[in-house]
Amino acid sequence: MSENDNNALIRLDALRNHLEIKTINKNSKEWRTLSPSQSLIVCMNRDRKWNGYGYKDTFFKFTEQGTVILSGSRYPNFSSKEFHELRPWLEQTLRINLKTLRQAQPSIIEISSPEVNHEFYYSIKPQGIWISFAEQDRLSHGHGVSTNEIYKLRYENLSKIPDAVIWPENHDQVELIVLAAQKYDVGCIPFGGGSNEVNALECPLENINNKKRMIVSLDMRNMNKILSLNTEDMCVTVEAGAIAKDLEDELRKFGFTLGWNTELMEFSTIGGLASLRSGDFNGHKGNFNKNFEENIVNIKMVTPTGIIQRSNLISPPVSSGPDITNLLLGSEGSLGVITELTFKLQFFSPHHRYISLYFPSFQNGLEFLREIVQKKVIQNYSGIRLMDESGLQLIQAFNTVAPNVTNIFFDSIKNFYLKRWKGLKVGKMCLAALILENNDLSKLDVDEKNIQKIATNYKGIMAGSELSETMFFSSKILPYFRDFLLDYYAISNFLDTSTSWSNIKELIIKVKERIISICKAQGVRARPYIGVRVDQVYETGVSLTFIYGFNCHNLDDPLETLRCVEKDALIEILKSNGSISQGISGIGKRKKECYLKSLSEPTMEILKNVKGILDPTNIFCNQNLIRDDDDNNNNNNNNI
Amino acid sequence: MSENDNNALIRLDALRNHLEIKTINKNSKEWRTLSPSQSLIVCMNRDRKWNGYGYKDTFFKFTEQGTVILSGSRYPNFSSKEFHELRPWLEQTLRINLKTLRQAQPSIIEISSPEVNHEFYYSIKPQGIWISFAEQDRLSHGHGVSTNEIYKLRYENLSKIPDAVIWPENHDQVELIVLAAQKYDVGCIPFGGGSNEVNALECPLENINNKKRMIVSLDMRNMNKILSLNTEDMCVTVEAGAIAKDLEDELRKFGFTLGWNTELMEFSTIGGLASLRSGDFNGHKGNFNKNFEENIVNIKMVTPTGIIQRSNLISPPVSSGPDITNLLLGSEGSLGVITELTFKLQFFSPHHRYISLYFPSFQNGLEFLREIVQKKVIQNYSGIRLMDESGLQLIQAFNTVAPNVTNIFFDSIKNFYLKRWKGLKVGKMCLAALILENNDLSKLDVDEKNIQKIATNYKGIMAGSELSETMFFSSKILPYFRDFLLDYYAISNFLDTSTSWSNIKELIIKVKERIISICKAQGVRARPYIGVRVDQVYETGVSLTFIYGFNCHNLDDPLETLRCVEKDALIEILKSNGSISQGISGIGKRKKECYLKSLSEPTMEILKNVKGILDPTNIFCNQNLIRDDDDNNNNNNNNI
Repeated sequence: MSENDNNALIRLDALRNHLEIKTINKNSKEWRTLSPSQSLIVCMNRDRKWNGYGYKDTFFKFTEQGTVILSGSRYPNFSSKEFHELRPWLEQTLRINLKTLRQAQPSIIEISSPEVNHEFYYSIKPQGIWISFAEQDRLSHGHGVSTNEIYKLRYENLSKIPDAVIWPENHDQVELIVLAAQKYDVGCIPFGGGSNEVNALECPLENINNKKRMIVSLDMRNMNKILSLNTEDMCVTVEAGAIAKDLEDELRKFGFTLGWNTELMEFSTIGGLASLRSGDFNGHKGNFNKNFEENIVNIKMVTPTGIIQRSNLISPPVSSGPDITNLLLGSEGSLGVITELTFKLQFFSPHHRYISLYFPSFQNGLEFLREIVQKKVIQNYSGIRLMDESGLQLIQAFNTVAPNVTNIFFDSIKNFYLKRWKGLKVGKMCLAALILENNDLSKLDVDEKNIQKIATNYKGIMAGSELSETMFFSSKILPYFRDFLLDYYAISNFLDTSTSWSNIKELIIKVKERIISICKAQGVRARPYIGVRVDQVYETGVSLTFIYGFNCHNLDDPLETLRCVEKDALIEILKSNGSISQGISGIGKRKKECYLKSLSEPTMEILKNVKGILDPTNIFCNQNLIRDDDDNNNNNNNNI
Repeated sequence: MSENDNNALIRLDALRNHLEIKTINKNSKEWRTLSPSQSLIVCMNRDRKWNGYGYKDTFFKFTEQGTVILSGSRYPNFSSKEFHELRPWLEQTLRINLKTLRQAQPSIIEISSPEVNHEFYYSIKPQGIWISFAEQDRLSHGHGVSTNEIYKLRYENLSKIPDAVIWPENHDQVELIVLAAQKYDVGCIPFGGGSNEVNALECPLENINNKKRMIVSLDMRNMNKILSLNTEDMCVTVEAGAIAKDLEDELRKFGFTLGWNTELMEFSTIGGLASLRSGDFNGHKGNFNKNFEENIVNIKMVTPTGIIQRSNLISPPVSSGPDITNLLLGSEGSLGVITELTFKLQFFSPHHRYISLYFPSFQNGLEFLREIVQKKVIQNYSGIRLMDESGLQLIQAFNTVAPNVTNIFFDSIKNFYLKRWKGLKVGKMCLAALILENNDLSKLDVDEKNIQKIATNYKGIMAGSELSETMFFSSKILPYFRDFLLDYYAISNFLDTSTSWSNIKELIIKVKERIISICKAQGVRARPYIGVRVDQVYETGVSLTFIYGFNCHNLDDPLETLRCVEKDALIEILKSNGSISQGISGIGKRKKECYLKSLSEPTMEILKNVKGILDPTNIFCNQNLIRDDDDNNNNNNNNI
């Protein structure tokens, strides 16, 4: 088919889509049970930035007076507020110069015309399945929101984007699409909320036997129905494209909760989270050590070989024989598409309390948290965080309420605190934050008292609920802030890991040293910023995140420098007995090289075989986890 | 080599072993850190029955007065006590005739001489690895304690037993043994505590290319050292042959606990439990929904392909990429030998309270438990049980203290209870039992009050702590009772399953009906006994056990009848949406056929491939889980 024919097809298709949007929107309630905000418009990414994180109306900027402000009204704690301490922080820590604004390109320079597999197209289109070849759809599905990808969108180019985007509306349509892809050799990349941080959505450059293969993105967000809510067995079965936060909002109407901090998951689909096993990060109600998989009663996945599910039943855990659930969870779209999930439910506790505490050192804060978790001091909590001294300064800079470091040390209670807490010094102290919850308001008081009692042993002092809220909700705006930094030649990223209590101190020292030395070697002029945040605590250890950034004004290729820093830091994490990831982000293409090296030979052999069994012709081609052999000409079972 | 040569070798070996026993026992403290009861004598099974469950000194018998008594002194709640209500129960329920004692055979009729692979023998013996060809060692390692196996030992014969028993003393020796087995084609069967209930230790009849293969049993109980106890990270690394109860006793000295009810695990090694993923059954401290795998931080397994372990680190759960841990857990010795395990620890709570409650019906008891678990009423518990009306009668028959059904209805408080609880009727009522625990004695009172309050809604009344103890500890003596029944022509067994709350009632009705009808069809004269016990509760459902038995005096082949009953009952469980097992027992050879049928094609394909990768030449030949293809002549990767 000539390029002209292709173009004609695309135009025709665009027209059809427009007509169909109107028809379907009218009857949207018939096939959609979640909140109306989750409309087709969101699915099309129309209110999201094309070259940055999140909503179009939300971005950081300087006011005319030179103060930083967050536009819009979506984030009550931050939107339209002025951050008076943020500009000094930017100038002092990242050496940002307000005069050197780096304008992003108005549009992407080059989008190649799509490769269209007509047999595939004509086998799914007549079934009423939505497909789009529109440039903006293809582009918005060709990336996640990693620093790397956003940087490329703003200043460079993406090497490849999908040839088309498909929106299945139910499990049967997914089966049909995967079958057709298998039959006509079309690559599929499952797409959840588009908020991936590790380049998992990066489109592979496929060129097998000098023949291009069509690659389609499967946007799952039209599959967001609650299929059943069983109040006797306390579980809910949902289509995998539901946005976690929408699902949670709906469940709360019935008095239930998923038990994770879904407030932070405004763009993530539950299928995307399951494919990363990434619930961990977000805290859990009522228990200290829940993994994502423990919340899952059942999972249904469409693979080219067939449908896999844990069982046909809603039942308690089945402890018989080997369990393959954990091969599917964490497979990051490399084995198939998750279409349905059944989650355990908890009763929703209406009472919450945000608590924050200053400690004279990070070590004190860690020992406090260890006692809290190992001795099971609190009955229920839905979040625990700890920021080190650098992280605290950033949080303080975002705090628009009170108290902040300045207040504490220069207001009337200064002397009182200085007398009682001689050890507390700006630049050394750290901040812990907790969200308590309970059905019983009086029990919150008991929990708070117990916390205060234990904190005393570690020289901690209570620092108010506002700072705790700032700490938790800052996760939602940090990606916007990352984009803002790019505007002023500062580049930043994060690495998440987990380690045992006894290893935390050494791990942090070594990784910080490594980041500083590699930055220096790469010609980064000012000292890089490195903040450390504990995101989750367990009896055996913690998961933590390194947030780092540096001024890149003088660098030839900031992305390449970032890549070098990241690679070295990750190697140092692994050498220092940290895990490769801790569920915030997964592995994707960003950590793939290190991940594969960390596997034993038999484990690698098992994973390759599982891929060979479930997806023998490599339909799920984004290859996040399975070894990407160079020999593309011989793309069969043996060399996947 | 002739049979004479073989015999000479065996005699020589027996002599060597005797000499070495003495040498090693002298220095036993150097290589053994667990309790001294765990000596080589236990390993050799010398104080265990050769043809029955448990200790030689412990068995049920009739006194001269015709009352049932349990001999010995090992089980404080039961040993040397008279069970006055047990004889009527036996006569009325199982129609047992005291005059028809069935004497067990004094010894096994026929033990074939061992197949000895001399290359294998001479590659491990010079390394100082213990090996025995003694008949009593081979016999004691050729079976578990299922009804089927005990019946055969008492009245029939075992079709095959291992050719030798090996006692490795550390991980390196296991590696050496597995390598040699791989090199010289010797089959290996890992052996833990010898208390398997599902014929997992049944020796395969191997006859490949008309050549017999030597099969050795790997008794792991000499590997019982605590390798490290990390109090900061709250975890312990232990060799896999440690007996769960011994390990728990040792940990309590340091103020820790594994968090399972190890009281009931006097014969089980932790490696054996891990290979079954079977901690579930035993209740967990502090949480309502812990699976066995959640307690495991790390696992180390020797396979013919190499060593597999979760990671090199003691760390919190790693949520990155697919996880193969759950392929190793639950593999029941079919992939390799587990040599080391790292478990999470909990602080040991010194205060316990046993609580029992009568409910007018099983349904009321279930609803009570559902509210307790779903609303998280109790802070900490380490056991929850519920017995139906038939199960209660048996428990009452074992209760030697007070109160029992008779007391309650015929003593002075009779009228009071009858007035308040009109619905409570003997033959309809059921019994719930809980073990509460807490660091804080006063919180136990709070928990107990809350329980009492909720019980009232379901017409429950408190029934004392003794009955609760009887209920929990009866698990330890029921296997002895099973053997006692065999002496009087009554055969019994159990099936464990799990299902959702909403499905319990229907499942129980259908399975009971099926057992009754198949018994009738098989010519069983009296109505079979069927008791149902809930063993564990979850937010989503329960795990439960069917305990059944019948008089087999008139049957030609009681074992075959039992097999038919069991097969039909298991099919009915699966048809009625129960799981195939719930961790008490695993799958073994007893449930293998049904298990394999319950797997989807891709899952089966994955499991077969995992077997092919880790154990390509089928060294781990007891084939509990992986399909046992008939074509033994072509025993390679493709057909395992």
